[in-house]
Amino acid sequence: MIKPSIPSGTRDFGPVVVRKRNYIFQTIRSTFEVYGFQPLETPAMENLSTLTGKYGEEGDKLMFRILSNNDDKLAAAKAAASNKEMSSILSDKALRYDLTIPFARYVVMNQQELTLPFKRYQMQPVWRGDRPQKGRYREFYQCDADVVGSNSLLNEVELLLIYDTVLTRLGLQGYELRVNNRKILSGLAEVIGKQELLTDITISIDKLDKIGAEGVRKELAARGLTDADITTIEQFLAISGTSEEKLAQLKTLLAASETAQKGIEELSFVINSGYAPFNTAPIIDVTLARGLNYYTGMIVEVKAPATVKMGSIGGGGRYDDLTGMFGMKGTSGVGISFGVDRIYDVLEELKLFPEATQQSTKVLFLNLGEASARAAFSYMMQLRARGIAAELFHESAKMDKQMKYADKRGIPYVVILGESELQENLLSVKNLVSGQQEKVSAAAFAEMTF
Amino acid sequence: MIKPSIPSGTRDFGPVVVRKRNYIFQTIRSTFEVYGFQPLETPAMENLSTLTGKYGEEGDKLMFRILSNNDDKLAAAKAAASNKEMSSILSDKALRYDLTIPFARYVVMNQQELTLPFKRYQMQPVWRGDRPQKGRYREFYQCDADVVGSNSLLNEVELLLIYDTVLTRLGLQGYELRVNNRKILSGLAEVIGKQELLTDITISIDKLDKIGAEGVRKELAARGLTDADITTIEQFLAISGTSEEKLAQLKTLLAASETAQKGIEELSFVINSGYAPFNTAPIIDVTLARGLNYYTGMIVEVKAPATVKMGSIGGGGRYDDLTGMFGMKGTSGVGISFGVDRIYDVLEELKLFPEATQQSTKVLFLNLGEASARAAFSYMMQLRARGIAAELFHESAKMDKQMKYADKRGIPYVVILGESELQENLLSVKNLVSGQQEKVSAAAFAEMTF
Repeated sequence: MIKPSIPSGTRDFGPVVVRKRNYIFQTIRSTFEVYGFQPLETPAMENLSTLTGKYGEEGDKLMFRILSNNDDKLAAAKAAASNKEMSSILSDKALRYDLTIPFARYVVMNQQELTLPFKRYQMQPVWRGDRPQKGRYREFYQCDADVVGSNSLLNEVELLLIYDTVLTRLGLQGYELRVNNRKILSGLAEVIGKQELLTDITISIDKLDKIGAEGVRKELAARGLTDADITTIEQFLAISGTSEEKLAQLKTLLAASETAQKGIEELSFVINSGYAPFNTAPIIDVTLARGLNYYTGMIVEVKAPATVKMGSIGGGGRYDDLTGMFGMKGTSGVGISFGVDRIYDVLEELKLFPEATQQSTKVLFLNLGEASARAAFSYMMQLRARGIAAELFHESAKMDKQMKYADKRGIPYVVILGESELQENLLSVKNLVSGQQEKVSAAAFAEMTF
Repeated sequence: MIKPSIPSGTRDFGPVVVRKRNYIFQTIRSTFEVYGFQPLETPAMENLSTLTGKYGEEGDKLMFRILSNNDDKLAAAKAAASNKEMSSILSDKALRYDLTIPFARYVVMNQQELTLPFKRYQMQPVWRGDRPQKGRYREFYQCDADVVGSNSLLNEVELLLIYDTVLTRLGLQGYELRVNNRKILSGLAEVIGKQELLTDITISIDKLDKIGAEGVRKELAARGLTDADITTIEQFLAISGTSEEKLAQLKTLLAASETAQKGIEELSFVINSGYAPFNTAPIIDVTLARGLNYYTGMIVEVKAPATVKMGSIGGGGRYDDLTGMFGMKGTSGVGISFGVDRIYDVLEELKLFPEATQQSTKVLFLNLGEASARAAFSYMMQLRARGIAAELFHESAKMDKQMKYADKRGIPYVVILGESELQENLLSVKNLVSGQQEKVSAAAFAEMTF
C-alpha cells in the first residue's frame, strides 16, 4: 500500500481555505460584474496548435502536455528522430497556460456573434511546470478582465478603477497602482537613437532597485551605450515629483520622440483625466517594463502594501493586436489580472479575512435518542428553509461527544431537546461562544437569528 | 494560419451559458451548505498511483495522462517493451477522473486533522477520454456531496432530501428519486442459492424496460438459472403497490436471507422513517443496480421528469469501505452526485431558467462627447457603488450605434445626458423594454431601482 500523495506543486484546499478563497473570488467577480464585464469559461485543454509559440520557448517547455493513448502514436513515437519530434507525436493537446490566449482564440472563433467591445472576465486555474517553491505552484488560478475591440482609454481608466475597487473592498490599504506606457520606453530608446536596444535598456532600468544607479550605469555601458546615452537614461530615471511634474519632465526630456509624446498623452489621460475617483491614486513609474514583448500602450502593476514582503499582486496592459496570431487583425485588447494566491497570503498576513467568510453550520441539534431526533429534525428543516445551515448529530451519542463535534467544527449554537424540553414543548438553545443557555418556545425559535 | 479550434469533446461557455450554469451550481452549493456540508477542492492532476485501477480497465484507458517533459524519460520510453510500459514511463500523473477517489485520498492524507463524520461537497470538472457524442463530453463538471465516517442512515435520508430540495428549488416537477439497497439484490441471489451470479442477475433485471419480461427470462436461462430460480426472480420483479406493500412483499419473498432483511429494514428507514418531509417521495425500484461494484447499502438514482427524454440526472449510494484502498480501513461513506450538464438540458427544454440568471449590465450611459461622458461617469460610479452593473459607452459615437450595443447586449435601461439634460441638471432614462423615457433629477436617479 503506497501512502497517498498529490503531485508536487499542487494543493488540496480544505473547507477553511476554500471559503477564504471564495471570498476573494466573489469580491473580484462581483466587481467585474458591476463594471459590465461578462463571464467566460474555456476548456482546461487546448490544442497544441493554439498554445505553441505563444509563451516563448520557456512556455513551450513548461506546458503540461496530454499524452495520446492511441497505440499507433506510441509506435510512431519510438521511431522519432528527436525528443522534440517524439513529444509532438505523443501529444496534440496541453493544459491551459494562461487565460489570455484562450480568450483570443475564443474571440476569433466567435467573432460573428460577439458584440464589440467585448468585456469578458475569466477565473479559472492554469498549469505551468515551473519548479515548485514557496508561493509558486504548478496549478493556480488566474482572474482576468479584458476588453477587446476598443481603443478608448476609458477602458484603461476603468480597469485601474477595478483594481482600486477590489483592493479597497478587500480592506487593503497602502497598495500601489504603478502605471507606465510602453510608448514612453520606446520613445526613450528612440531619443537615444538605439531602438534596437529597447529591451536591453529596460532590463537594466528594471534592476534599479536591486543594483542601484551605479550598477545600472555599468550594465548600460557594457550593453554598448555611450556616456551621452547613459546621461539621458539617468535623466529619465531621475524624473520625480507629483504626477503632473513627472509628466512635464517627460515631455521635455523626450520632446524629440513623437511616440513618446503619444505615450505621455495616454498616460496623462489614464491617471489624470479626472474621470476616476480613485481611493488610491495611481503612481507613474517610468521603470515599469513588464510584458514588453506584447504590451503596446499602458502597462500596470499592482504592488502589495509595503508592510508585507510580497511584491506584485496583479498586472496588465494594452496589447494592440490581441487576435492577430489567430488571423483576426487590428483588434486591440486591454486587460488586467489578479494574483489570487498572493492576495490570499497578503490578507492572511494582515488578518483581513472577515470572520463571516467562515460561516458554516450555525446550529447543531443534539441527538438524544429517537424522540429527540425526530423533533430536532423537524426544527432543523425549518432553519434550513430559512437559509440557516443546521445539522442534527448523526447518531444518538453521549452529550460530551456531540458537544466536542460542535466545538471542533466551530458551530456556535447547540439545540438540546431533552425529555423535559419535549414535554414542555420548548427548546434549549446554548450559545457556545458566550456559554449562555436559554429555553425558548417553538414560535420564538422560528424567529431567532443565529 | 490554422483556423483556431478546441479539442473534440470540450466546450467554451460564453456569458449566457456561464450564467445559467452558475445558477444551477449556486442552487446546489447553497443547499449543500444549508445541510452542513463543507467545500473541498482537489488538484486537477493526481498521481497515477492514486488513480490507476480504481475505475476498472476502461477507466485506466480513458484517463487523460500528463506527458512527462523529462528528456531522460523520453529516451527510456523508446526502449520500452510494450505500449503499456511505454505509457507508464512517459507519464506519472493523470487528470481527475471523478471526485470520489480524490476525496478518499484527501480523507486518508488528512485523517489526523479531520473531524468525523466529515460532510464534504465538491464541484469541479473531471476529464474522461470517452468518444464524444451528444450530451457526452470529455470535460464535464461533477457536483458531489459525501459523508465519510458515519454508518447512520440519517445520512441517506439527508442526501435524498438534498436531491429533493435542489430539484424543487430549480422548479422541476415530476422527477423521481428511485432507491434500492444492494443488500436486497444480494439477498435475492442468496435466496436462489447463486450468489456468484449476482452481477449476471442484476444485469438482466436492469434490462427489463428494454427487453421485457420474456427477454429477461431468456437471458437468465442462458446464464444458467433454473426455472425455479427464474420464478423467484419474476416474483421479485412483480413486486408492486405502495412502498409499504413493496416492503411487505420483499420481506416475505426474501424471508430466507438475513442480508435481504437487513436491506429491507434499511430501505424502509430511508424512505419511510417519517423524518423527511419530501416534496416528491422516493420510489422503491428493486431493479436499480447502478454501482454494484462498490455500493454496499442504499443505491439511488434520480430520473428527469418523464416529459423530457433524459434519463438519469443524478445518482449515488453507500460504500462501506471508501478509504480502504488507501490503507484506512473500516470507514464508511455515502454520497450523491448531480449531473449538471443533463440538468442544464432539462431546465432549458422546460424553460425553467429564471430570467434573473441573465442579469448583467442594467444601465448603459450614452457617450455624447466629453462633457456628457464626464457627467455620465460620475453617475455610473454611483450606480456601481450601489451594486448596479452599469457601463458608459466606450467612445463618443452616433446614438444609433450606442443603442444597438444596448440592444445586442440586452441592457434594459439607457441614460442620456445631452446638452439640455446637462443644462437642466437632469437625466433622461429610457426603458428599452417598454420604450418609455422620463427625465429625472439627480436625487431621484440616486433612488431608482433597475
